[in-house]
Amino acid sequence: MKKIGIIGATGYTGEELLRVLVRHESVQVKFVTSEKDKGKLLSVIYPHLPAYKNKQFISAAEATKNPVDLVFLCLPAGESAKLAKIFLSQNVKVIDLGADFRFKDPQIYKKWYFMEHLTPELLDDAVYGLPEWYREEIKKANIVGNPGCYPTSVLLAVIPLIQDGIIKNDSIIVDSKSGVSGAGKAPTKTTHYVQTNENLSPYKAGRVHRHVGEMEQELSKISGTKEQVVFTPHLTPLTRGLYSTIYVKTKSNMAKQQVLNVLENAYKDEPFVHVLHDMIPSVKMAANTNNCFIGAETVADSNTVILFSAIDNLGKGASTQAVQNMNIMLDLPETMGLLS
Amino acid sequence: MKKIGIIGATGYTGEELLRVLVRHESVQVKFVTSEKDKGKLLSVIYPHLPAYKNKQFISAAEATKNPVDLVFLCLPAGESAKLAKIFLSQNVKVIDLGADFRFKDPQIYKKWYFMEHLTPELLDDAVYGLPEWYREEIKKANIVGNPGCYPTSVLLAVIPLIQDGIIKNDSIIVDSKSGVSGAGKAPTKTTHYVQTNENLSPYKAGRVHRHVGEMEQELSKISGTKEQVVFTPHLTPLTRGLYSTIYVKTKSNMAKQQVLNVLENAYKDEPFVHVLHDMIPSVKMAANTNNCFIGAETVADSNTVILFSAIDNLGKGASTQAVQNMNIMLDLPETMGLLS
Amino acid sequence: MKKIGIIGATGYTGEELLRVLVRHESVQVKFVTSEKDKGKLLSVIYPHLPAYKNKQFISAAEATKNPVDLVFLCLPAGESAKLAKIFLSQNVKVIDLGADFRFKDPQIYKKWYFMEHLTPELLDDAVYGLPEWYREEIKKANIVGNPGCYPTSVLLAVIPLIQDGIIKNDSIIVDSKSGVSGAGKAPTKTTHYVQTNENLSPYKAGRVHRHVGEMEQELSKISGTKEQVVFTPHLTPLTRGLYSTIYVKTKSNMAKQQVLNVLENAYKDEPFVHVLHDMIPSVKMAANTNNCFIGAETVADSNTVILFSAIDNLGKGASTQAVQNMNIMLDLPETMGLLS
Amino acid sequence: MKKIGIIGATGYTGEELLRVLVRHESVQVKFVTSEKDKGKLLSVIYPHLPAYKNKQFISAAEATKNPVDLVFLCLPAGESAKLAKIFLSQNVKVIDLGADFRFKDPQIYKKWYFMEHLTPELLDDAVYGLPEWYREEIKKANIVGNPGCYPTSVLLAVIPLIQDGIIKNDSIIVDSKSGVSGAGKAPTKTTHYVQTNENLSPYKAGRVHRHVGEMEQELSKISGTKEQVVFTPHLTPLTRGLYSTIYVKTKSNMAKQQVLNVLENAYKDEPFVHVLHDMIPSVKMAANTNNCFIGAETVADSNTVILFSAIDNLGKGASTQAVQNMNIMLDLPETMGLLS
Repeated sequence: MKKIGIIGATGYTGEELLRVLVRHESVQVKFVTSEKDKGKLLSVIYPHLPAYKNKQFISAAEATKNPVDLVFLCLPAGESAKLAKIFLSQNVKVIDLGADFRFKDPQIYKKWYFMEHLTPELLDDAVYGLPEWYREEIKKANIVGNPGCYPTSVLLAVIPLIQDGIIKNDSIIVDSKSGVSGAGKAPTKTTHYVQTNENLSPYKAGRVHRHVGEMEQELSKISGTKEQVVFTPHLTPLTRGLYSTIYVKTKSNMAKQQVLNVLENAYKDEPFVHVLHDMIPSVKMAANTNNCFIGAETVADSNTVILFSAIDNLGKGASTQAVQNMNIMLDLPETMGLLS
Repeated sequence: MKKIGIIGATGYTGEELLRVLVRHESVQVKFVTSEKDKGKLLSVIYPHLPAYKNKQFISAAEATKNPVDLVFLCLPAGESAKLAKIFLSQNVKVIDLGADFRFKDPQIYKKWYFMEHLTPELLDDAVYGLPEWYREEIKKANIVGNPGCYPTSVLLAVIPLIQDGIIKNDSIIVDSKSGVSGAGKAPTKTTHYVQTNENLSPYKAGRVHRHVGEMEQELSKISGTKEQVVFTPHLTPLTRGLYSTIYVKTKSNMAKQQVLNVLENAYKDEPFVHVLHDMIPSVKMAANTNNCFIGAETVADSNTVILFSAIDNLGKGASTQAVQNMNIMLDLPETMGLLS
Repeated sequence: MKKIGIIGATGYTGEELLRVLVRHESVQVKFVTSEKDKGKLLSVIYPHLPAYKNKQFISAAEATKNPVDLVFLCLPAGESAKLAKIFLSQNVKVIDLGADFRFKDPQIYKKWYFMEHLTPELLDDAVYGLPEWYREEIKKANIVGNPGCYPTSVLLAVIPLIQDGIIKNDSIIVDSKSGVSGAGKAPTKTTHYVQTNENLSPYKAGRVHRHVGEMEQELSKISGTKEQVVFTPHLTPLTRGLYSTIYVKTKSNMAKQQVLNVLENAYKDEPFVHVLHDMIPSVKMAANTNNCFIGAETVADSNTVILFSAIDNLGKGASTQAVQNMNIMLDLPETMGLLS
Repeated sequence: MKKIGIIGATGYTGEELLRVLVRHESVQVKFVTSEKDKGKLLSVIYPHLPAYKNKQFISAAEATKNPVDLVFLCLPAGESAKLAKIFLSQNVKVIDLGADFRFKDPQIYKKWYFMEHLTPELLDDAVYGLPEWYREEIKKANIVGNPGCYPTSVLLAVIPLIQDGIIKNDSIIVDSKSGVSGAGKAPTKTTHYVQTNENLSPYKAGRVHRHVGEMEQELSKISGTKEQVVFTPHLTPLTRGLYSTIYVKTKSNMAKQQVLNVLENAYKDEPFVHVLHDMIPSVKMAANTNNCFIGAETVADSNTVILFSAIDNLGKGASTQAVQNMNIMLDLPETMGLLS
């Protein structure tokens, strides 16, 4: 039985980790932290998770005194870097669900997150936690930067086409729709039910949203040239779920079946990425799971391919992907606790 | 053209007044106030109401220097009393959408609102603004206490049966379901989309919610004896709408048609209260309108009657009922601007 | 590894069985049937359940030729009786998620379901599948009638108080709110999104809904006298979830803590029934789980107790309760595959 | 007082016409037709519209014997053509909310609607009912083809840029999100609440959806060259509302303010089209109104402009736009009955 801890367990990603780990037969949650709620019983904050009812939130400082095999950091950008260093020095493996370990270049981190990286010396060893593309590296990693939700949905759909050299440079347009849990747990004008229900609104359109940096880093790594992405996220009246509709130009005209074959070849042995051949995925298919569903259409009389990618923003877009990474890092079966 | 003002126009009831008054051909909105947003253009807060885009929020203090025919007070309990006094002294008629002028007895106000009434001397003249039962008094009133949303739905359904002496004393159980706009515009844990969507939760069950005092005052006034109401409000995943399912015991067994006749007789000439004979009302019927839909069932082998009452919590439960009161007070056709 | 089959696997309860059984480590789904879709791959109907993608729907007739340990019948009332008999004759245990094996008396079945029971000879051996109250009988049963969703929510909350003799006879009023999946998968005017979204509507109010018969049978069994229930179900804009707000009169005045103690004593060792002491349950707590959350309030100056009961209509109200029954019948750990 | 009739009044567009015409002071609804429900009282189908409760549905055949000033045809494609001819022959003006009079070329109609046009001789006189661009023609028209919902949202945003010669040919990508009322009133698997709630799914992506033909016709007319549109509509969990996020390439780099100026110049005197300068529109702004809200962003380092367009699919996308056309055709003030 492996021991794990969750740092920052009062947000949605921490809660989702707790929820899925109830079912996991080979790990045990040793501690959960919250600076605001330390000392409180979990039953007060999470009455719907009776499995943890007698456990107490502790502080992160106290947590660093607990020997565990792996910690999940569920913290805002900028807050993970130093804690990660402490845990690594204690031979605790680290999965950061925030952005601090997703970038190789601290300058690019700074460009998108408007702050200096506090432990740039760790970035070389950190692995981008997209198992379908970096499984071997994750296996050996002590620290993994768990991908952002939007990038997960986009990269899984686009990488196979980039890798095959099919896509014209700088032609990628991503129109994404995210459930409201993606906006975080803090009550704001934007997350008020009356504002969000029966509504849909884009935000940070263009090349403005932080996840653009992450997408462009990963796509450029694959193509070997600098890729630009035009990106419009939309807040959508869903609790959970994330959908990306992606428009790319191909170098030559392609039939739909050719595109699907490229995707199928990439993922035919993957347990969590599913290419649909006869239908367009819908976001609900992926809800509450670690699955990603991908589809494609081609446009008559045009070298345009439309890709469709559905995930759960808290699942494959965050916490269950983190558990998948944990399974790999702890040498457990990759699908353990994640099937559905 | 009558002139009106709205005090506290940044909450949902003020916004709804603005929305419906666009269509009203005989009144003109002279001012809208907001202490927090004074100086701002309405186009910044209400981009969806272009009719007002060049108007500016002013302060309540400045508003009292503007001669208008009537003001709507859209303020929390305790904040209307003194402003009402100032406006009345300037011969401005007042409709208070809060609770300060709903109670005749300042002690009962204090019991339910936990504060002293600041202008108890005005309570004698204030009229409870339920037009179907107090139309003549409203016509002559200078100050009207606009009813609460839950009491409006309950009183319209129950008063006719109380008045006919049909209901057993102390047998009234009200199970109400309210849309989230009833919880106000402030972002809280409770009004967060992720908390409220796909959820339903009772709150302040028993004889605890402030509206119990208002219901009991009005029902006791009709029956002449002290009435008690058991009341459970539920926060329901609706933006707008309020539904009350009401269980009462009758003194003798009654057929459904008898009950419907009592209701029909009470409301047959009313433009906004509609008794349904062949179906149970649903809350959507009343959405975005000043209508109340009422239905009834009787229970086999039991002296129980179930009453159903649907309104829009911001419509007949607040702002459009206030406009109905305004029409009466300003001697305009009662349905003006309210038909739909 | 035990072998199971699902008869009628294209409705919501069959789909939910498939979903939860993916995680179950000790049973294997040998067949799923559908008369309409026989021959089709599950991937066509359930693309979101890749675990079953190469499995085909077969007919019920073909299913009866397959040796399995247990079958789930997910069929409309009247269609289970004969199939159950066939499976039983082959020493296959049966869990019927429909109503055919919930009633002891075929006349009462006929009263509520308007048809003759086709295999009344089996009713004596059938056990009502509410594990918290009939665990020992279920262990020995060959056939279990899985409870209805509304009765499950009501019985778990009310039985402890009936058993303790606290409740006045004929004083039970149940106001329930159900998610739309409870209305079944057939597209109808009522289940159309535009009709149901932003709406709430009661139906079959009084003593009319079929589940009244089931509640009254079970409550009368406990109290030893004939119990009547006044029941109003409401269609609520939720995909999943069922909430019952229950009003009962007690023989003497009771403090809230006394009521909670009675409930706590009944369920303190139960893995799936949770009594909340410091908060009122909300329906979302139970979503996607086999849990039932129960709370209580008492009303000042009145012998009224309000009980709150939250379940998932497809979970504890149907399919996961069926899996709980299966675990008991197959001598597996009762919580296997059901924790969350 | 002008007299109007509604042919096919049991769908959503007919219902919405009835709803908004309650408020219209210069027209009177003389008849409403339904082949299926003829003879029934409107109170049976529309209990929430008490203004019409004593009116009966009649057949279309009977309607043609009634002298009115104007009829709205709310019929599926192919069913309006012949009825239109009859009404025109009786000097009744016609607004068709379907597709039969949107195309100038019957071959193009056939290409997208897979049927022969039944009255091609009328197409020359029919005017495309987008008042902001064809007001003068509508004023003189006897027959108007009311635009489709998606085209309305797209054309209002794109036409000004096409007209100014800013957009590169064949570079238009439209990603639209529509409320479920756009899918019509017939209960289907797709419109079932359980399928659609907490979901989002594209359909007919590429150049496949019928509205592509309409967009391309209108844009080509303005630009003078053949325009192609890549179009992905998404079914979105909203009752009402339609949002288009539109990606276009400009011939040269443009600042956001330049784009907004082009839009502002086009619509500065329009009562129903509002260009937002400091925020991105959200779909809720337009709900239940005849308004269209438009915004724009430009993408750094790219000649890409993103346009945002929000309407109500049943409002400006159908019935209130039809009323706007009616006002123009009947020489009434254009905003009558439509302000909000």
